[in-house]
Amino acid sequence: MPELRKDPVVGRWVIIATERARRPSDFVAEPVRPRASACAFCEGHESQTPPEILAGRPSDGRPNGPGWTYRVVPNKFPALRIEGELEPSGEGLFDRMNGVGAHEVVIETPQHGAWLAGLSVDAVADVLFAFRERMLDLKKDPRFAYVLVFKNHGEAAGASLEHPHSQLIATPIIPIMVSEELAGSAQYYDMKERCVWCDMVRQERRGRARLVIESRDFVALEPFAPRFPFETWILPVRHRAAFEESTEEELRGAAAILGEILRRVNQALGEPPFNFMLHTAPFREAQLESFHWHLEVIPKLTAVAGFEWGSGFFINPVPPEDAAEALRAGTIRS
Amino acid sequence: MPELRKDPVVGRWVIIATERARRPSDFVAEPVRPRASACAFCEGHESQTPPEILAGRPSDGRPNGPGWTYRVVPNKFPALRIEGELEPSGEGLFDRMNGVGAHEVVIETPQHGAWLAGLSVDAVADVLFAFRERMLDLKKDPRFAYVLVFKNHGEAAGASLEHPHSQLIATPIIPIMVSEELAGSAQYYDMKERCVWCDMVRQERRGRARLVIESRDFVALEPFAPRFPFETWILPVRHRAAFEESTEEELRGAAAILGEILRRVNQALGEPPFNFMLHTAPFREAQLESFHWHLEVIPKLTAVAGFEWGSGFFINPVPPEDAAEALRAGTIRS
Repeated sequence: MPELRKDPVVGRWVIIATERARRPSDFVAEPVRPRASACAFCEGHESQTPPEILAGRPSDGRPNGPGWTYRVVPNKFPALRIEGELEPSGEGLFDRMNGVGAHEVVIETPQHGAWLAGLSVDAVADVLFAFRERMLDLKKDPRFAYVLVFKNHGEAAGASLEHPHSQLIATPIIPIMVSEELAGSAQYYDMKERCVWCDMVRQERRGRARLVIESRDFVALEPFAPRFPFETWILPVRHRAAFEESTEEELRGAAAILGEILRRVNQALGEPPFNFMLHTAPFREAQLESFHWHLEVIPKLTAVAGFEWGSGFFINPVPPEDAAEALRAGTIRS
Repeated sequence: MPELRKDPVVGRWVIIATERARRPSDFVAEPVRPRASACAFCEGHESQTPPEILAGRPSDGRPNGPGWTYRVVPNKFPALRIEGELEPSGEGLFDRMNGVGAHEVVIETPQHGAWLAGLSVDAVADVLFAFRERMLDLKKDPRFAYVLVFKNHGEAAGASLEHPHSQLIATPIIPIMVSEELAGSAQYYDMKERCVWCDMVRQERRGRARLVIESRDFVALEPFAPRFPFETWILPVRHRAAFEESTEEELRGAAAILGEILRRVNQALGEPPFNFMLHTAPFREAQLESFHWHLEVIPKLTAVAGFEWGSGFFINPVPPEDAAEALRAGTIRS
């Protein structure tokens, strides 16, 4: 019998189509492989990107030259523009404002053919440090309410460049999906005086059926009502609303779990395209008792079609308990 | 300068990335063409589908034999199952119920190589009559709260079968996207005592920049804050909450506009894959003063990636005014 399950935060129901259930091997996607060998994001090609905003330069090299471990540069084709004021205005029923924001690229490694799943814990931690640094800096700009950190890996997941990179977009308003999570979290807090995410982490660590891996400070789990097969969330065990307030030690812990999850996804699903998205508290609400930052990893395995676009209901053919079992079986890379 | 625009109903902001603006010819997708010449949905193969629920049989042929113009059959691989009770239950934080619902397929024509855009107004109207009949029947089942009608055309839009067909899924709860539209519409109604959709139709008919075509009873327009390039909505001009309460005359008017829009989309964009989704009032709220049924048509031209999945913000490279102009330029097929 298929099952309807409700996300406890946003109230979104999904259909776990158990009768369409498939084994992980049925989902092996075209593996993501670099086709080119060099690009504008490669070491030695620094002049082909806009000047860097931040970089890891262990040997104190000059900005915009070689010798870096990661670089943050403005997106050359930004979705939003850094200059200008919002100038909100109306047109009868409708509301608009200027598309002011920041759009930056985090080049995760100098090597074109590397990937985040293959980097050392230190190198993944550097990428997370870069996210934190950029968030702390963008937070000073009073025009911005939020920054969304995300990664598109592989063409099918929307990546237009294959060199390993992630992105940040700072927006003048809080994105609607984050608002919905905040509203659901606040409603739960009003009722229970507890963080729904903390409760979820506790229940899943106790039940274990949807738990993939855990460390002292982090868990990776398959959510109860996942939109997508093998959707995996990484959350801090203790209450933390704002990613950018993480300590270096916490970020190293997050990096270890993230690298491990990406390797297990690769092993279980044949190096599929994927996205990840970081949900953190809005800039002006870093101390929220009701919200808890988390990273959502979604392998790109199924098509989104008319039913999903029309209803917001997702049909997921893999129960999260089965996905967790398959990901737990992955061997740990030493 | 890119522009942020807000949907007046659900409050979702989109980025109209004018600096990435492209001409319609930049979006010409791989045209959707049938590869096979016959399938289980073809005339003469009726025994390969589950027994029909409804069919157009102008010459009074026997059910499940040839001689039909359209057929409605249960989906052979349903996302939800028609038998059983909901039996809602909890698991700590989480809520679930049995996946009870109806999942039906409307085979739009007996001909494998035909398509909805190429059918006569009468034949398209028959498909809309079939939607109405099935909705009126499913409405009698007290387990169901809503039925979503949708179409996936072309593999890239999620179609797994190429024979022209659309689908209905009846669900025991109101889908979250419909709830969000209902809530936004009710909020506007509380404030203004007018239907926001009626106001939108009036404003767009006056302004004309986003209007594509209109008839006595219907308009087709590009919404102010479209998620996707060439997203097109069809709405009745007069206030109508529930699709299934449409008269035959109204449905013929809707069929004429729908066929015309599909032909213009084909002409402007080279027969792209597309989805459409019907948003109508929930079964138990057919008389709503605040809600107005509409059909959303979305050509599949751009990829949805991490930013969209994480934020609910869509980046649309084509301003709806440009899309409307391109679709208005399409010649009218006589």
